[in-house]
This record gives sequence, C-alpha cells and structure tokens, in this order.
Amino acid sequence: MLIVMKPDATQADIDRVIGIIEKLGFRGHTMPGENRTAIGITGNKGAVDPTHFENLPGVADAIRVTKPYKLISNDLRPEKSSIKVGNAFIGDGSLAMIAGPCAVESEEQVFKVAEIVAASGAKFFRGGAFKPRTSPYAFQGKGEDGLKILAQVRDQFGLNIVTEAMDERGVDLVVKYGDCIQIGARNMQNFSLLKYVGQTRKPVLLKRGLSATLDELLLAAEYIMSEGNYDVILCERGIRTFADHARNTLDISIVPAIRRVSHLPVIIDPSHASGHNYMVEPLARAGVAVGADGLIIEVHPCPEEALCDGAQALTPEQYSDLIVGVKSLHSTITKTTTTQPELQTA
Amino acid sequence: MLIVMKPDATQADIDRVIGIIEKLGFRGHTMPGENRTAIGITGNKGAVDPTHFENLPGVADAIRVTKPYKLISNDLRPEKSSIKVGNAFIGDGSLAMIAGPCAVESEEQVFKVAEIVAASGAKFFRGGAFKPRTSPYAFQGKGEDGLKILAQVRDQFGLNIVTEAMDERGVDLVVKYGDCIQIGARNMQNFSLLKYVGQTRKPVLLKRGLSATLDELLLAAEYIMSEGNYDVILCERGIRTFADHARNTLDISIVPAIRRVSHLPVIIDPSHASGHNYMVEPLARAGVAVGADGLIIEVHPCPEEALCDGAQALTPEQYSDLIVGVKSLHSTITKTTTTQPELQTA
Amino acid sequence: MLIVMKPDATQADIDRVIGIIEKLGFRGHTMPGENRTAIGITGNKGAVDPTHFENLPGVADAIRVTKPYKLISNDLRPEKSSIKVGNAFIGDGSLAMIAGPCAVESEEQVFKVAEIVAASGAKFFRGGAFKPRTSPYAFQGKGEDGLKILAQVRDQFGLNIVTEAMDERGVDLVVKYGDCIQIGARNMQNFSLLKYVGQTRKPVLLKRGLSATLDELLLAAEYIMSEGNYDVILCERGIRTFADHARNTLDISIVPAIRRVSHLPVIIDPSHASGHNYMVEPLARAGVAVGADGLIIEVHPCPEEALCDGAQALTPEQYSDLIVGVKSLHSTITKTTTTQPELQTA
Amino acid sequence: MLIVMKPDATQADIDRVIGIIEKLGFRGHTMPGENRTAIGITGNKGAVDPTHFENLPGVADAIRVTKPYKLISNDLRPEKSSIKVGNAFIGDGSLAMIAGPCAVESEEQVFKVAEIVAASGAKFFRGGAFKPRTSPYAFQGKGEDGLKILAQVRDQFGLNIVTEAMDERGVDLVVKYGDCIQIGARNMQNFSLLKYVGQTRKPVLLKRGLSATLDELLLAAEYIMSEGNYDVILCERGIRTFADHARNTLDISIVPAIRRVSHLPVIIDPSHASGHNYMVEPLARAGVAVGADGLIIEVHPCPEEALCDGAQALTPEQYSDLIVGVKSLHSTITKTTTTQPELQTA
Repeated sequence: MLIVMKPDATQADIDRVIGIIEKLGFRGHTMPGENRTAIGITGNKGAVDPTHFENLPGVADAIRVTKPYKLISNDLRPEKSSIKVGNAFIGDGSLAMIAGPCAVESEEQVFKVAEIVAASGAKFFRGGAFKPRTSPYAFQGKGEDGLKILAQVRDQFGLNIVTEAMDERGVDLVVKYGDCIQIGARNMQNFSLLKYVGQTRKPVLLKRGLSATLDELLLAAEYIMSEGNYDVILCERGIRTFADHARNTLDISIVPAIRRVSHLPVIIDPSHASGHNYMVEPLARAGVAVGADGLIIEVHPCPEEALCDGAQALTPEQYSDLIVGVKSLHSTITKTTTTQPELQTA
Repeated sequence: MLIVMKPDATQADIDRVIGIIEKLGFRGHTMPGENRTAIGITGNKGAVDPTHFENLPGVADAIRVTKPYKLISNDLRPEKSSIKVGNAFIGDGSLAMIAGPCAVESEEQVFKVAEIVAASGAKFFRGGAFKPRTSPYAFQGKGEDGLKILAQVRDQFGLNIVTEAMDERGVDLVVKYGDCIQIGARNMQNFSLLKYVGQTRKPVLLKRGLSATLDELLLAAEYIMSEGNYDVILCERGIRTFADHARNTLDISIVPAIRRVSHLPVIIDPSHASGHNYMVEPLARAGVAVGADGLIIEVHPCPEEALCDGAQALTPEQYSDLIVGVKSLHSTITKTTTTQPELQTA
Repeated sequence: MLIVMKPDATQADIDRVIGIIEKLGFRGHTMPGENRTAIGITGNKGAVDPTHFENLPGVADAIRVTKPYKLISNDLRPEKSSIKVGNAFIGDGSLAMIAGPCAVESEEQVFKVAEIVAASGAKFFRGGAFKPRTSPYAFQGKGEDGLKILAQVRDQFGLNIVTEAMDERGVDLVVKYGDCIQIGARNMQNFSLLKYVGQTRKPVLLKRGLSATLDELLLAAEYIMSEGNYDVILCERGIRTFADHARNTLDISIVPAIRRVSHLPVIIDPSHASGHNYMVEPLARAGVAVGADGLIIEVHPCPEEALCDGAQALTPEQYSDLIVGVKSLHSTITKTTTTQPELQTA
Repeated sequence: MLIVMKPDATQADIDRVIGIIEKLGFRGHTMPGENRTAIGITGNKGAVDPTHFENLPGVADAIRVTKPYKLISNDLRPEKSSIKVGNAFIGDGSLAMIAGPCAVESEEQVFKVAEIVAASGAKFFRGGAFKPRTSPYAFQGKGEDGLKILAQVRDQFGLNIVTEAMDERGVDLVVKYGDCIQIGARNMQNFSLLKYVGQTRKPVLLKRGLSATLDELLLAAEYIMSEGNYDVILCERGIRTFADHARNTLDISIVPAIRRVSHLPVIIDPSHASGHNYMVEPLARAGVAVGADGLIIEVHPCPEEALCDGAQALTPEQYSDLIVGVKSLHSTITKTTTTQPELQTA
C-alpha cells in the first residue's frame, strides 16, 4: 500500500496517517517529494484495505501494491500445472481439444458428434445438460437425462466429459456422471458455487466472466483452490465490450498475462467468443498461436436445427478442417520455440 | 425476425429461406429492394432464433425484432407496480430510502446506524450478513448471527430489512429473518438462484449485473416472476466501463429506459456505483432527479474502521445532510411534473 | 513513481533499479517488506516514465503516482473558474443553458428555434455549420453560410453562439462569426487542433471523447491552456459502453470527479448522451442535480424532418417544459446546499 | 429500414408511417404479426435515417438494415486489394512486416534499428516524427528533421517509410519524405484530415480508434476513398475496455469480420495493443494466425532509454526471435489452407 498525500497536506495529516498505519501493526515510510509526500507501508502480510486511508484529511490517493492471491501464483509453483481430467491431461504441453454440441439434445445428436470428435483425436467431449439461458422461456437443457447420455459417450468412445453445473444439485450430478465440472461465465463470481466445487475432487473448467478482470478471474480460481481442489483450468471465452461485430471480444492477451503470474493452464473458447460460425476457425488458430493449452469448440451435426447457439456451431466438416489447421500450427509453434510457448512469454 | 439477403443472393437462396420459415410454421414476406431482398417473418408468438438462418447461403444478416419478455412488460400492466416490503411500499410515488452499513459487523455498529436511519424517516434498513467478496481471504459476513441482529433492528426500530442472499440456504434464512431478498450484481444471472427466490413470496431487490444490458436485467426479473413471485424491485448500481475515476459507471439512463418498457420500480445505489464517499451525495441527487423510486445508501458510524467497503460509506452526519437534500429535490420534481416523473419520460 | 520488486528479486536487481533512478537525477527509497521490496522515487518534478523500469530483471510493477497536469488543477487555482462567453458567463453559479438545433439547415429553421431559445431565458445558442458525420455520404453542414446565419441570430436575439470547428479553417471562421469554439468528442485528442484553438482567445467548449478517461479529458484541456487560452469549458456527452438502451452512457460521476481536481466548469449534453428524445429531460434533470454548470440541448422545430440526429431533438414544447423543470431543480439545489453544489462534493 | 410498431399501435399510426415512407419516395410493406405489425421499406438506394420514424406515435423501434458503405465493400470488389507502398506490397498474400522505433529520436538510434529491420527481411520501416501524446508536456517528436532521417533510411536500406501525420502540414511533409501516411487511432474520426489524405495519392495506414466499431472504421476508410485515394490499409491496435492487464484489448476478431465485408488489407499492431514487451510476441503470432496481412512492431536499440513507449518496444534480439516465429507460422498457415487465409474465413 502506498499513500499519496495532497500537495497541501500538513504535517499533522501525515502524522495521522502514520499513526493509523502503526495502529494496524505495520510500519510507515515517509518519502517527502518535490510536490507531495508519499508514505509506503511495510510489515503487512496480505493486502491492506485502502479504506482505512482514502478519506482522511490530506490524503490524495491510496494505491494497492500487494496482490491478494496465493495458491494460483507461480511465486508458489513456478512450473505450469498439468491437470488430469479423466484419463488425459490439460496443461502438459499437448493441445487439449474439447469438442461437442452446445446442448445435449438427443442420444442421436450427441452420438453423431461424438463419433466425429473421437475420430479427430480429441480426448475431451463437451455438451450441456444444464443450460444457463438469458430468457426463462428458452430451452434449459435435459438435466440428468442429458448427463446419462454423456456418460454413455465416455463408455463408448473413451472421451472425457466436460459439462456445466449451475448449482449444488448440478455439481453432485456432474461429479457422478462427468469428468470435469464447467463453471460458466455468468457464475464466475457465484462464490457459494465456487466453494462447493472446491470441496469436490473433480477438476474444474472455470470460464472468465463477461466483465471479469484478470485479478477477479484468478481470485475466482483461488476460491476453488482455497477449499482444497487444486485442479482448475481457466478459460477465456470473450468479454463484453462496445464492439458489435462479434458476440463478445476474445481477449487473447489474457493468455500471456496469466502465464506471467499463474501456473494454471488456460484454454480458449472461440465459439462463444465470436458467436459466428465463420469466425471460429481463425480465432481458434489465434488461440493456439498465442500459447493456449487447448480449445473448446462447438460442433453440431446440423447447426441450423440446434436448440441453442446454432449460429456459432461448426459442421462436422468444418470441425475436421479446423483440427488439421490447429494441429499443424501447434506443432510449428512447439518446434520454433526452443522452450514451451508459455516460458517464451514470461 | 427480419432476414436480410446478400446483394448476390439467388432466387434459390431466397426460396430456401422461405422454405425454412414455413417449415417452422411461420409466414415469410419477401421485400425486394434496390440492392438486396429482405424477408420478414410473421406468425411467430415469441422470438425466432436467428440461428436457423444466419449461416444459410445468400443470407447477410438475421435481425431480431420481438422482445422475449412478457411479465415485466408494461404491455401487460401499464401502471407502475408498487411493491410492499414489510410494512411499507417501493414504487408508490414516494422516495424509498434504504440505508445501513455494507456489512453487519456487530450489534453495536448496527444499532448505532439503525438509530440514525430510523430518525431520518427512512423505512428500510440494509446490511449484509452474507458478503460476496472478490477474494476468499476477505471478510465473508457473519451469516445467521448477522441476520438475527437485523431482525432485532426491525423489532426495535420498525425498519424493514433488505439483505442479500447468495445461495439457497441464504435465501431460506433471509425469508426467515428479513423482509426483502437482495440478489447481488454478481448473481444477476445465477439462474438457479433466481428461480429459487421466484418460488418464495418475499419481495426481491435485483441488482443489475456489472455488464448486464437492459434486456438481460429485465429477463433476470422475468426469471423470478415466471416462478410466481411478482414482487421485484430493480436496482442500478453502476456498470463496468473503462472509466477509472469511479469504481463503476452509474448508468442513470436505464431509469427512463426501464420506465418505457416495464412496470417494475427501480432504485439507485450511488454507494456501490461510485466507490467514493465524496461522490455519493451528488449521485444520489442525480438518481432522484432522473426519476428513480428510491435510493440504497451505505452508512457507517466510523467508515475508516469498516470491515468492508469503508471508502464509500457515509458518516452519520453526511447521511443526514444527504436526506435533507434528496427530500427537497424529490418534492420539487413531484411538484413541477404535473404527473409522476415516470410518465413524463414515457 | 513506485517500483515494486518481485519476491525473488536479488539485491543486485534492487541496486540496478536504484542506479537508474540516480542516473535520472532522482532519489530512490528502498522499503523492504515481508514478501517483496518496494522502491519509492522522490526528487522528480513531473511524472517519471515507468518505461525505464518495467522490463528490468526483478521488477514486478512500476506505478505512477504524480498526475501530469498543472493548469487545470485546483492545486493552482482553488476557486472555480467562471468563463465569459460573449456577454454571459458559464461557471458563475447560474445554470447556463445552451440550446439550438443539431445542424444549421436554413435561416427559417434556425430563427424559429432561436426565438424559442431566447424566450426561455437561455443565453447561449448552439447549431452546427460543420458536422462531423460517421459517413462521408451524410449531410456535412452548410459551412460558412451556416455561420453567417448564426451571426444573425446573435444580432437579432442577443444569444451567444457556440458552434463546432473541425479544423483550422473552421476555427478561423468560428472565431470570426461565433462566441465559443466547440471541439467535438471525436476531436478531443486531435492535438494539433487543440493547440490551434489554444492560440485563439475565444472560449472553448471541449467535449469528452467517447472513450476518454478523466485524465485524458483534463490533459486535452491542458493542451489548450498550455498555449495560453485559459477559457475552457468541459462537456460530458456520454461514453461508449456495451449498454445498448441509449446511444451512449451518460457518465454523471465525472462532474464531482472533475470538481475534486479542477477549477474548470463542466456542462452536460443529455441529447447526444442518450440519442433518444424521451430520455433528454430526465438526463437533463440528473445533470443539474449532480452539480453541472449548464446544459446543452438540441431543439428542432420539426424533429422528424431534421437532416441530422432528429431522434434526440426536443420539440419546442418539450424544450419549454424542460426549462421549467431544470430551473426549479437548480434553485432547490442552490437553496438546500449551504455553499455552491461543487463545494459540497469536494 | 424496418419499422416495428407497438402492440397497441392503431391503424392510423400505421398509415402515418406509410405516408411518411411514401413522402420520402420509398415503398412501405406492412407485415401484420401475432402481437405487432412491422413495416419494411424498399426503394431506398442508401440507408434511411431512423429519425424520421423513431418518435412517431405507435412506433416501437426503427432498425437499420442497409449498410452505408460502398467503396470498401467486397460487393464492389470481391478479391482482396493489394496495396503498393513504395516498392513493395501489402495484401498480396505475403506477410508484411513494418518495424522500427516508436519515435524518431536521433540518427544513431534510427540507423541502429533500421539495420536490424532490413537484415530481418522486412520491407517497411516505421518511426514517428510527429507524436500524438496525451500530455502537452511529453516529447512531441522531432518533426521535419525526423522525417529527413527517415528519408535517409529509405535511401540507405531500401526500406519503405510508414510514418504518422497529425494535420495537413504533417500530411504534406509525409507525402514529401515518406511512402505511407499513418493516421493514428485518435484521429480515426478526424474527418477533415481523412478528406485531406484522401486527396493525396500516397497509401494510408488507418488505425482503428480506441472505441471504434467495425462500421466506423470502415466508414473512416470510405471517407478517404470517397476523395479518390483507394490505397487504404486498415490496422487493429487494440480497443479500450475495462480489462487492465494490457494497455488495450487486441480485438483479433475484427480481421475475419473485415474480410467478410471488405477487400481492404488489415494489419495488426501488437505493440500498442499490449503496451507490454512480454506480450508482443504472443500477440504477433496470434495476429498472423488469425489471417492478418502484416504486423507493425516497435523495436528500440535500448528500450529502457526510449523517449516514448519504451515498455512495449522489443530489443533487437527479441525482434529477431519474433521474425523467425511469425515467418514459420505464416508459412504453415499458407500451406494448410488450400486457399488464402482470408477466403477460409469468409
């Protein structure tokens, strides 16, 4: 914490600030400048609340310095975490492909996609049984019946199941039928839910909220980890901005930014980020190029008949093309960087 | 729904679109223009999913026309709703004042504030027993013990209690001890929680999410109402933008925008919107002037010692000054507008 | 400037930073903390560029402390500036009303509006002769002919003319025919133009850019003032956000934020902020309530025939109603605040 | 244009709208729906101003359908434009590399960088002689002396010079000394300047404004082209959002979005987008992967001594590494896509 005094602050103002710092058990360091005095605080173990100072007479600003996270930090664990999801890994240097329909609609639809996904070499299958929809009148998912279909996909195709839970009952069911609990963007700061999944021992795919800062995303992961579940995979899926040519703005710069401070793996969701079929492949390529650990892609056997988000789903043919492209890109990057991409960017 | 065809769309492309519209049971209206053909859809009862059309050959764009909400709409109910909260009303033309500390910290702290709030003529008391905090290491609220203190405030001062619930257990407790369930900004699209509070018969104060559009806010209210709970009060508490002089950007324009389409009352939270003590009073005045039905204000007997959000809390003296100012403003507006402010803006 | 070192920074890293600070002629203050060392800089007269430090080994962050503005600051001039525009003042405690059509279309149109504006007691008339239009194919304004019409308005009605200039030729013409040079939002960081108007001795109405921070707005004013023209009036006209119910999001919190650091007067433009006729009056009221020094409002004798921005223009009747409302509001605020509104918020 | 009527609109309201449409010389198509009537407009050659309808009784909404641009459109020119800049091309399928320092500081600095840039195989050199700085007290560039140094670089190293102009005098000088006029983000809607560069016959590098939509960027290009200069190269350099881990948010999705509607080439600026040295390489890779026609990169012989934006400049070594990486990436993409990348995304 750094307290910046106003140019006209009196010595009494400065002494008052120092007094409060000492009352809190810390030490204040006065630095008189040309125009104004600044006061540094040391001795604190975590972040100090700026509140204590911001409205005191003579104080111009109180600036946080220490970051409030611990477990996500590569100060604690310098090498990247490799997370086991079912029988495969995310964050081990390979490109994790998670593919499937937006929503589980029927056994037939799901199996058609699963066959293609398995054939492409992907190890993870996505599909929603619980759908967070903006309108209460939109299709809300098939619930436990949908999860049972997904469990069949695992049995038959050997794919590991990534699927969303929206509440505690949903978490219990995903723990029972799936391999990885997805927390959606709209629940990224549903702290009760984060604590609950933190008490399970299933890996968690945590999607960035629509207006979440880097720190908020990392602290949401910290919520899960502070309950004892260390298997968290972060996911960038686009943020909300003024730009209207895509449904959201894919913020690829968060990948190197996460690498710089955290050991957690991060994947990219070009389908939800763009909302448009024609953008998915170029954004997927960009995600691989920026150094993401994987991609999550929506595929539908017949997008124009999808019950949910059909505009962004790839056809099976488009998905197969995409796979060829991103694999060769990933292999080029791995070759041209002497070390892992993420170290390159640190 | 309006389908806009590309300039080079063929007759076959147009016929394909018409075919799909008819397959969905609707009627297509072709409008050939100078450069491109547009196709209108009629016969649909709700919104049509643009997905069905967006990626078809020859289609340039699919534009939604019908709004997906019903119960919140003043098409359904032209006069504004007046919601009973405990023994008082929000939305009845008076200015509802909801005041109290950010978090319940102790009986002493809460009672000190409650005395001032009651003396000011306010009818509602706020205070959090469950606190949604960005960091898992920050103070998380006193839980049920906090709610018991709030229940004492009601008994002793006759104030109606507005307090947040973050999950189903919390909702059950707020139903037991409080008068109005607050749903925080970070839970505005926690659809499971919205449905759960929709099944209670306590009024709900629904805060706008940090990046929620008007439609998303209204549809979150629609979630609650579609479960049978019609007592929803909306709350603008600032949105997330690039601007860095306030913690959030208070979007007062949403008040007339809500009035234009919905009968639900709307209040303003200048404390969370600004994050700065010195901004609370001017923003509160603006909220009243724009036609809000009430204000929710943070007051703390000693802001610099608050466990949560002290920087934005008013001292008791500042709160008393604010009350004088906003009351005279509200009375001026009521006088100078021949009808209710909200009708003025319609 | 505060340099925060990484937890694993070595003594050599710290010494390197201190060395660079000293090489720049400043003094470094080392503050060893529990986890990491911070280094304060004193002896600098202005802002230090964080560039010098950000990429050095062992450096986690470089945080600016000193603000880079001088002339706009109320450190320099504590009382608010009252700016003379023609024969009247903006910032003198009265509510300055600037009204007129978006664009000058014809003598008839302009005179019709001017008559109403003058009758309402307003002292300033607005109207664009040079129009910054998003499309090159939209109406671009009548140029010098338009300015001549505005000059007639001044002669005939005694109204002071506020009108936009987009380039140097335009500035020369506005200096010749008008009373106040408006710099539009899209030119707020057209630094060449700012310097050019800084060399004139006409007052300048500087509109906030669509995505300008408080500091950027103040520094744009500083550009004008640093050339010797101290008569700058700031204008909030809405910022660009994700919200889609209004054309822009009116950020009223910038009014108290400006008051806290600057002596310059600030006015509100509810017409451009909202883009919708029905929102103009409630936003105008909010602007007055938050403590603005004036309003700029679009009025058109027949909005549906306007060549530019008709959707937001008020009819003469709506404008007259608005005037009654905001005047009584301004008078209430002036009475209920023992001092000027702006001091209240400091 | 589509006019959506309110559910309670009367036949008279509908007739009034039709009347105005016909008065404007167009044709109205009434489409009665279950809940509300919509009215389509045909016969218009360009966009119709929604203003004419938005505030009429019974009208709920007026929705634009036709896009207002012409010359930038691939309706007009389906194949991508290849722009000649000096003796080389941008948009011809190769990866255009534009590199150099942020600002021209001295002959020595510029020549040191130019040597590296030329050796890397790049064909374009960047460097600012006129610098748009947020503060009037920051280094503003060396002006014509800087341009003379750049002209020497061209003579000695055969590099084509891309450099910014901020006003008409600057344009004249860049036309004299340089090969491509850069229009900075803050001037993207300086329409007078756009028209002026449109009258030159030098190619223009047009940077996207900080909060410019796709349509606004395209219309800014249209301004230049409508004056007769068709050689426009678009540049994405990050937009302003709430996200604080990078200086701006690089919006790579605009590359496929531009491809879908326009024939103009588009390049990526990862240096200004990120503001951080460590992010430049991963973002550059992402730019190539998403299908951009080139990159513009800041390089400085000694970034910590740069007079401007040193935090984002690459060292010569980092730049050489980047070149190796992006070249192999570009070659992989060209191979794995049977056609040009841009067609892939259409």
